[in-house]
Amino acid sequence: MNIVIEQRLKSLRQFMRQHQLSAFIVPTTDPHASEYTPSFYESRKWISGFTGSAGTVVITMSRAALWTDSRYFIAAAEELDNTEFVLMKDGLEDTPSIAQWLLQNLKSGDCVGVDGNVNTIREVQDLQKMLSTSAITLNTDCDPFSEIWENRPSLPTNEIHIHPLQYAGESYQSKLKRLRQKLSIHDCNAMLICALDEIAWLLNLRGSDVHCTPIFVAYCIVTEENTTLYIDSQKVTAEVAQYLKDENICLKEYTEVTTDIQRLQIIDLLLPPETNTTLYHAAQHCSIHLEQSPIAYMKAIKNDVEIQGYRHAMERDGVAMVKFLRWLIPAVQAGGQTEMSTCRKLLELRKEQELFKDISFDTIAGYAEHGAIVHYEPTDATDAILKAEGLLLLDSGAQYLDGTTDITRTIALGEPSEEEKFIYTLVLKGHIALSSCKFPSGASGTQLDLAARYAMWQEGYNFGHGTGHGVGSYLCVHEGPHQIRMNYKPAPLVEGVTVTDEPGLYLQGKFGVRTENMLLCVPFKETGFGKFIQFEPLTLCPIDTKPINMAMLTPTEIQWLNEYHSTVFNRLSPLLTEKDDYQWLKDATKPL
Amino acid sequence: MNIVIEQRLKSLRQFMRQHQLSAFIVPTTDPHASEYTPSFYESRKWISGFTGSAGTVVITMSRAALWTDSRYFIAAAEELDNTEFVLMKDGLEDTPSIAQWLLQNLKSGDCVGVDGNVNTIREVQDLQKMLSTSAITLNTDCDPFSEIWENRPSLPTNEIHIHPLQYAGESYQSKLKRLRQKLSIHDCNAMLICALDEIAWLLNLRGSDVHCTPIFVAYCIVTEENTTLYIDSQKVTAEVAQYLKDENICLKEYTEVTTDIQRLQIIDLLLPPETNTTLYHAAQHCSIHLEQSPIAYMKAIKNDVEIQGYRHAMERDGVAMVKFLRWLIPAVQAGGQTEMSTCRKLLELRKEQELFKDISFDTIAGYAEHGAIVHYEPTDATDAILKAEGLLLLDSGAQYLDGTTDITRTIALGEPSEEEKFIYTLVLKGHIALSSCKFPSGASGTQLDLAARYAMWQEGYNFGHGTGHGVGSYLCVHEGPHQIRMNYKPAPLVEGVTVTDEPGLYLQGKFGVRTENMLLCVPFKETGFGKFIQFEPLTLCPIDTKPINMAMLTPTEIQWLNEYHSTVFNRLSPLLTEKDDYQWLKDATKPL
Repeated sequence: MNIVIEQRLKSLRQFMRQHQLSAFIVPTTDPHASEYTPSFYESRKWISGFTGSAGTVVITMSRAALWTDSRYFIAAAEELDNTEFVLMKDGLEDTPSIAQWLLQNLKSGDCVGVDGNVNTIREVQDLQKMLSTSAITLNTDCDPFSEIWENRPSLPTNEIHIHPLQYAGESYQSKLKRLRQKLSIHDCNAMLICALDEIAWLLNLRGSDVHCTPIFVAYCIVTEENTTLYIDSQKVTAEVAQYLKDENICLKEYTEVTTDIQRLQIIDLLLPPETNTTLYHAAQHCSIHLEQSPIAYMKAIKNDVEIQGYRHAMERDGVAMVKFLRWLIPAVQAGGQTEMSTCRKLLELRKEQELFKDISFDTIAGYAEHGAIVHYEPTDATDAILKAEGLLLLDSGAQYLDGTTDITRTIALGEPSEEEKFIYTLVLKGHIALSSCKFPSGASGTQLDLAARYAMWQEGYNFGHGTGHGVGSYLCVHEGPHQIRMNYKPAPLVEGVTVTDEPGLYLQGKFGVRTENMLLCVPFKETGFGKFIQFEPLTLCPIDTKPINMAMLTPTEIQWLNEYHSTVFNRLSPLLTEKDDYQWLKDATKPL
Repeated sequence: MNIVIEQRLKSLRQFMRQHQLSAFIVPTTDPHASEYTPSFYESRKWISGFTGSAGTVVITMSRAALWTDSRYFIAAAEELDNTEFVLMKDGLEDTPSIAQWLLQNLKSGDCVGVDGNVNTIREVQDLQKMLSTSAITLNTDCDPFSEIWENRPSLPTNEIHIHPLQYAGESYQSKLKRLRQKLSIHDCNAMLICALDEIAWLLNLRGSDVHCTPIFVAYCIVTEENTTLYIDSQKVTAEVAQYLKDENICLKEYTEVTTDIQRLQIIDLLLPPETNTTLYHAAQHCSIHLEQSPIAYMKAIKNDVEIQGYRHAMERDGVAMVKFLRWLIPAVQAGGQTEMSTCRKLLELRKEQELFKDISFDTIAGYAEHGAIVHYEPTDATDAILKAEGLLLLDSGAQYLDGTTDITRTIALGEPSEEEKFIYTLVLKGHIALSSCKFPSGASGTQLDLAARYAMWQEGYNFGHGTGHGVGSYLCVHEGPHQIRMNYKPAPLVEGVTVTDEPGLYLQGKFGVRTENMLLCVPFKETGFGKFIQFEPLTLCPIDTKPINMAMLTPTEIQWLNEYHSTVFNRLSPLLTEKDDYQWLKDATKPL
């Protein structure tokens, strides 16, 4: 038995007893509905030992369970081993939802506890509705971890910085004006902004509170008259304070937001459904419009400066990738390289690039069977030695001041097997079909998703993760509201949004393949049938041609690959000062 | 001005004044949420003069408007000409919804009238919610047409018939047992069935109350103990009465259903959201479960007998189509043929086939520019003479006792132009890609829709209608709950359901192209990635190869067409007794 976890569960249950709670739910987020959070909010990880980026823990007096999705089925099972936790595989037909499970395990009159501070109002309302059918109540006013978590990390106090106009492309004043227009269309006089990337985007500020992501913990209230930033004042440098003053942005302590919401003299307040329950309750005296944040699309649709920024960032990121790929095979052949050593090498090469600030997420370097674990990250315990055979799946990205990158390449370290080539080519066909797809402006990602899956479905293969997500501009590497996936989400793809194209296939115990470029939605043509959009691949890096089964590609697909490689060569070769890099790129991009 | 329509509007407004209604809404349906209704319920057609199959009329004291979708934009504009009616183009960005329009045109305190008998509870609840934001109320207890419609057709009293087990494939008792199991899974003790095709399916009965559709006007209540059929007793023959008695089905008058619902001693009653408002209100003393009818999928998933029935019906329908197509070109060349004369000829040939009962919808025969009017039906006024040039779009189907058919072919009556070939081939590529698509069992139609549109989107073309719909077994030609279309509907495609594959392109003022087969979902393979489904084309009829631009087809597409044509030849040729028919089919299906 894992004694640490056992002890922690014991203290939580003691808290539950004291507060008459029959169950307690621990989600993976913070008061801002963030995907990645400051470690202060990693209570789900603390209580369960599960380190994945997605999952929810539910604890009753006698049971403990963790819900997570297919990306983490293998990793979670390992990490929960020797604990009381049962793994609930989200998305499988037989897996009950959390509400169903609670209905099965609790009885009428029981009370479920959640911390309203880290649970969105949408989740809470949905849960409340389900539980009320069995007269089970929900107490949203519980904060066990402030009591039971010893040596809890403190909230970050890192300094914040101005994100210059030369990278942001639009001033705060201009963004504010547009936002107020949108609020007025929604008949709202004010909005509470909880999402950290929305605050960073609107105010043209950046921070470093969250691993790999240049955001900072804060709230923001925008009314018709003023804007108030709620933030730990330690984080505000003299320069930023002056900027805020110049821009007429009021500055208050982070903790003052609840009282201010309670005092708001506002009739119509826009709250996104991701607002946390505590602040939603604080706004009960307002007429609340629970609607998607208008900032979501303002931020997702990139301006010309941001688009140019991406193109430049991609050139530098491409140079780092080319240098890395040129180094990789001989280094593997020479021996001694591992998954982790390749991550370090790639980081080193990216660090040499101008405007590099950080990686945009922890690099996934999965060799052979590790490649089949979708969100595998090598650790000291798992780090595999690379041999001159098999496939290496490498999913990585960087934060440059002028753009965030996200790229996956799967590289044959030796002579690929027929099966490796077959799977690799199925994935490549999907990647090409999506990248080449033209579509009516406003199509949803679900309407396009088939392009990436058609070829593999013809052979009875599929993958469980999404096909594409938006990427921020020196912001979050996962950015909504649009996405490309099987599950329907009514978020249109329009000119100016970025989206990844990342189909994959994973053969458990054997290998994994994923090929990912970032794409930009650009105009295609306007016809009697409306406005059509096409994709411009932003990512500039050769796609390994060694594992391609040429017989499986159509002439159109070969043409796409040759044209892409020609673009990659034309854009990157002038930037390669070393002759060996240049020659390697020339070989890697030669027409098929 | 159209004096007839003017007079009718005048009487409706008089009714509205008497009942203090500021607006009245007239939908296109009946108490059973039918797509096609007995003429008794065609009040929207009567009040507006618009004859299309979809649309809603809203009338205020000073305005009259008709909402309809893109299929009818051209036809509706013509039919509404010289009336007060304004055409509201549903689905266009600038078109307000009915609720929005009412909010714009009415004031607080106004009352909107609807006939609760012909408006579903879902529609009424949605509307009520929207209108309540401006304190506008809804009176669902209005029935103006019983007062103001002179010479209104009476409700049909046609006899009903037993649908034999040799075609139905499953006894009423077996269906009832399965239905009761499903109700118990939903924690319900009873269900009210309003949908006429569900009643016909469950009881293995057929009627002829609705044009082209073998259904009959009735209600049915299924409880844990018994089944009651509410129907005009004139329609029940001695044979059917005996059958009902043998099967322990209680028989009551159609009009008794409301009182019976009010008297139901039932705790948990399943009502589909398509239940009409009047009956929903009658059930207020029950615990209502507003859920999709469990019969929808029971009926959609065909049993082996029904599947064999389709295959046989398609062979006979294919023979009629082949004889028709063999006749067509020489007949056109000989002169004197029109859109309507071809419809008559096709009907004549279908009537020769065994088990033929009726056509399954009014034949769409659109020559040249008429082909671009999506739901064009030739009338005496529009009937075009066919010349040995241009394209003829022919969408038709039949009701056979062993299956319902729906097929569209576009035929070149002379040498096609380059533009006709280009458009025809884009549509064909879409048809083939969808027909060839393999997919995980349970995928929704929206996830597959791209297959039919990918090729045309690459050129900036699109179509506004759905790509596919289910088809009943000697029942409705449009059958849910699944469909293939751009708009999302979470209805999975599973083994045993039928669906059409009917992409099209319409160049206004020029021509239209559509190619439609009916498909059946059959197993493909089961892999580590789940169960996959493929399509078996049920329709057996050559696809005109003359308008194909061969340079636009891939080898895979040509292979599909050759294999399809080979199947068509092998299945139909043994049934062709005339040598000329045989030879024509052999030519029409020869490999490309």
